[in-house]
Order: sequence, then C-alpha cells, then structure tokens
Amino acid sequence: MNELIEILNQWGTRRVMVLTDTNVAGLYPQYFEALSSAFECRTLVISAGEEAKNLEQLSRIWERMLDFEMDRSDTLILFGGGTICDVGGFAAATFKRGVHVVNCPTTLLAMIDAAVGGKTGINFEHIKNCIGVVRQPDYILPANPAFLCTLADSELRSGFGEMIKYALIAYPELFEQLGGMKTLTAEAIRPEWIEWCVAYKQKVVALDPEDHNERHVLNFGHTFGHALESFYLSEDMPITHGEAVAIGMVFESQLSMQHAGLSEMQFFRIKDLIGWFYDVPEFSDDLLKQLKPFLLQDKKNSGGEINFTLLREIGNATINNFIQIF
Amino acid sequence: MNELIEILNQWGTRRVMVLTDTNVAGLYPQYFEALSSAFECRTLVISAGEEAKNLEQLSRIWERMLDFEMDRSDTLILFGGGTICDVGGFAAATFKRGVHVVNCPTTLLAMIDAAVGGKTGINFEHIKNCIGVVRQPDYILPANPAFLCTLADSELRSGFGEMIKYALIAYPELFEQLGGMKTLTAEAIRPEWIEWCVAYKQKVVALDPEDHNERHVLNFGHTFGHALESFYLSEDMPITHGEAVAIGMVFESQLSMQHAGLSEMQFFRIKDLIGWFYDVPEFSDDLLKQLKPFLLQDKKNSGGEINFTLLREIGNATINNFIQIF
Repeated sequence: MNELIEILNQWGTRRVMVLTDTNVAGLYPQYFEALSSAFECRTLVISAGEEAKNLEQLSRIWERMLDFEMDRSDTLILFGGGTICDVGGFAAATFKRGVHVVNCPTTLLAMIDAAVGGKTGINFEHIKNCIGVVRQPDYILPANPAFLCTLADSELRSGFGEMIKYALIAYPELFEQLGGMKTLTAEAIRPEWIEWCVAYKQKVVALDPEDHNERHVLNFGHTFGHALESFYLSEDMPITHGEAVAIGMVFESQLSMQHAGLSEMQFFRIKDLIGWFYDVPEFSDDLLKQLKPFLLQDKKNSGGEINFTLLREIGNATINNFIQIF
Repeated sequence: MNELIEILNQWGTRRVMVLTDTNVAGLYPQYFEALSSAFECRTLVISAGEEAKNLEQLSRIWERMLDFEMDRSDTLILFGGGTICDVGGFAAATFKRGVHVVNCPTTLLAMIDAAVGGKTGINFEHIKNCIGVVRQPDYILPANPAFLCTLADSELRSGFGEMIKYALIAYPELFEQLGGMKTLTAEAIRPEWIEWCVAYKQKVVALDPEDHNERHVLNFGHTFGHALESFYLSEDMPITHGEAVAIGMVFESQLSMQHAGLSEMQFFRIKDLIGWFYDVPEFSDDLLKQLKPFLLQDKKNSGGEINFTLLREIGNATINNFIQIF
C-alpha cells in the first residue's frame, strides 16, 4: 500500500475514488484505510454482475466523479471483479478524457483477464462489450490469492474457464495439471498458475494492444462464448463469462478439428476436462440459429465473415480463421 | 472522392455511415454519391447545435451503427460542424472499441478546430465535453472553402473566434490582417488563413496528443470560454463556442496583463478587435461568481488551482499558469 501511495503522489493525485461492488465492499474495510490519511477519498459501491455493465451504471459513476470534482490528475481505484474493471475502466478512460486508473482485482477472472490488457466497456442492446475503448491501467496491484477464498463458487468457476483457455492456447503443462484436479476450490488454484496467465496475457497485449492481430489469440472460445453470454443475457438467464467461454471452447475445438488440424483424441480430452466442470449443451443447429445474430456482431469480424481463433493442438493456437458457418 | 474510396478499400471497409446534421444534410446530396456505388452506405442525420452533444444522441448513433451491423473495419464519415465531429468522433472511438473515422468539416470552426486533433466527446450535466476520449481521425478531407458560403452568420462568427485565437497565440501577422476586416463574410475568409490554423494545430497536437502539456496552448480563451458556454447552456441561453472563446480571450488577456506581462496597449488592441465582432460583457465579480462552479471543473485543472494559457504578447503564449482567482 505504501508503494501505491507513492505512485499516486507522483501522479499529483489529490482525490481517490474507490469503485467496488456489493460482493466485496464489506469484506475488506481495512484495505484502503491507509489511503484516507494521504488523500481525499470516496468509495462508490455498485451492484455486481454482468447486468451492471450498462449505460445507467456508467452515468452514475460519471455523476459521482463529477460531484467529487475529480480532475485528470486524480485516480479511480477499481477494486472488484470483471464488471468493476470493465465499466470502471471505461468511466475512467472517458471522464474528462481520462483520469488515472489502478486495478485491484479480487476475483480469479479479474486477476488473470479483466484487470490486465486495458479492454474496457459496457454491454449495449444485449451485445457484450459493444461500447468501450482500449486503455491500459496505469497500475495493477499484484493479485492476492487470499481474495479467492471469499469467492462464490460460480465466480471461481467463471475465472477457471479463462484459466483453461490459457492452458489450451499456450501452456500444455498447465492443461495436464488442471486435468489432475478433482474439485474446483480456491485452495486448489496454485498462485503460479495465476502468474503464468498474467505473464502470457501481458506478452500478447504488448505485441498488439489495440487487438488488430496477435491479441486475437486470447479470444479462443470467445466468439461462441460472447454469443452465448449475450444470448442468455437477452433471455434474462445470464451465465457467467467464464462458463460461456468454457462452452465456447468446446464448440471452437470442434471447429478446430475440421479447420485447424486438432486431433480427435485431443478434442475429446478438451471436451472431457471442460465437461467435468461445466454443463455443456449440444452444439445443435437450433442453438446455432439462436446464436447467429450475436455471432454476426462479434468485434473481430471483418467483411461479414466470422473470425475464429482455433487450436492446432493443445497449447498451440492459430488466429484469423475466417469461416462461413451460416 | 476517388482518393477516399481508395483509402476505404485499403481499410477493408464494406459499410459506410455518413453522420451529418440538419443544417447541411440537404445541401450536398451529390457529395457522397460516388461512395454508394462502392460501399454499402447509410446516412444518419442528427440535429445540429451544441445541445445535441448529449448521451441520448450518442446512444442513438450507437444504435444505428449496431443496426447497420458495422464492424471495426467499417467507416463513419463525419460531415458537418463541431457537434458532428465531437459526438460522432466519440461514437466511432467507442463502438466495438473503435471503427474508422473520416472527418469532413463543413463549418469554419470544424475546419480549423474540431475536425483536427482528435478530441471527441459529449457534454454531461451541463459540463462541456465532460465525457470523451482523444482519438485521432484516420483521415481528414481537405477543407472546402465553398462550404463556408452556406453558413449562418452565427456559425461563421463562431469559427472566427477560434481564428482570432490562432492569431493571438501564434500568428501576429494574421492578427494584423484580421484587424483590417470591416465585416465578417465567408468571402472575406482567405483560404490560406484556414491552412495556417490547421498547420499550427497539427504541429502542437503532434507534440502532445493527449493534452498534458504543449497542447494547452490551444486553450487560450477556453478556460473562461468553456465556463461561459456551460453557464449559458445551463441557463438555456446557449451561445456558440467561438463566441464564448472570443469573450474568454478578452478576460484572459486582462489576466495576461497582470500575470504574463501583456502590455496595456496590446490588451486594448485585442479588446477592440474582439469587441468589433462580438458583444463582450463586463468582467464583473457577479459574473465571475456565476462562472465559478464551471471554472472549477475545467479539465486542465490540477490540484484545485485553475490553469490558464496566457499571452506575453500578441502571437506569443505561455501555458500552465496556475492562478488562484477565487
């Protein structure tokens, strides 16, 4: 915390707003106490969950920042999961054209994904992350695995979906280790796994921060995943991001067999691992039809074709596979 | 127009949306005809004027882009004045985290200011440009002076305020030439004056695109100008941007005498020129009090003090003058 205070001072920050959600606001009252003696501090608590990533919530954050008279040297601290990082990061990037942002991820998903890489945004008209910008956080507090112990099961399973993704696109040895897990608990998540995921994401983001090319690799499972998430959200039956990605990875592994040379044996190993932790629906024509409007809005699409990241084998991904699936 | 078509093809654009306003939509039906044969085209007409720079209008643009199924390789063409550039530029920067943007400025203000430099945004809670990002346009169509002939007087006077600004911060010879004008007409605006303004702005923006330092020079007249604009907007008596800046420049020239060594003689020359074209109210304590809440929200402020760009002499500005005026 002393390091953070020093950094905020270097930025000339006088006002600090901590944005957090109803899940974690009460759990760590001591966490930012040291800040209050050094800066003018306020906390804004918003509701947790994907449904909170909307224009109304965003306006509320802007209003509170305005009311607090924050200027561009001040800092917004994002203390929470993916929703806080996404909507808070967008608020910070756009308020007076940008105040400082510190990410302090409290969920597995935020630690290995949302808090790293600078993608921010909100959902719009049921389209996931339809509106947003890429804006790197100015500082990320190191992931604290102790936070994981307070996570709801569904939250842990959401982050775990992204962890499986990193195994499939980059770390075959991680895939083996995850395969050895019987039940998913906070204690079973080894801190070095989190470090591997963050390191890989940072490496790829540095190559292509604006997501025009290399960064697409991180989207494995996400083309279907986002469509599933948007579809279930539009039906008022939201599923978590990581669960959607997990299901998406099974579908996209199936496409990988047809289009990228993934072996049938490896496909079944992937399907078995994911099926162990998640309920995976059948990849039916009916479901595909329901997902169609959402697949067509995917941000990676270009010229009307759908852009998939696929697997050649476990730990080896290939980007920019434009496939006409309709 | 052929050059533009070539560029859009290089970007892989398939869908082009032309965003324009009620002032110019009907005037130039032929302007983008050539585009329709090369791309899938739609036009979206929004109301003109500063009041249109709001969240509702922004949402409407996002909705239409979504409905048109635009992706990140597609292009939004901003055909209009400052409002179109500001709100449209923000919509383009944030839709799917950024589509291509072409600026085609039709007003004097847009030609020499809004279309250049990448500042985008909307007003929020009566604060001018409170929400936005800096995102450079991908292409700017060369200013066409013929457009100026169709401008309303108030529009011309608005752009002219910014032109006086460039004279005061950078071009003493332009100040002399403007001083020789008796009446403000479209024909009196010499094309090379527009080129000078654009060249100066581009030079400064290249040094400091995110507006942390050198770019502040462009804000001469704007600290008071924005406060005046926000104040009159909140009172439902909007004045144009350039008019507000013109008045702001008189106030800030007065501060320049006290704090930056501007001579009294030059101050009166500035006051006379601006007073010839604009109604400048008295710089009274009452007015200052009314402007206070808006001055305190200025984006350049840091640590609670108000940051002014001031003049040492005509054509020579100094930035980052933090003055405690309250």
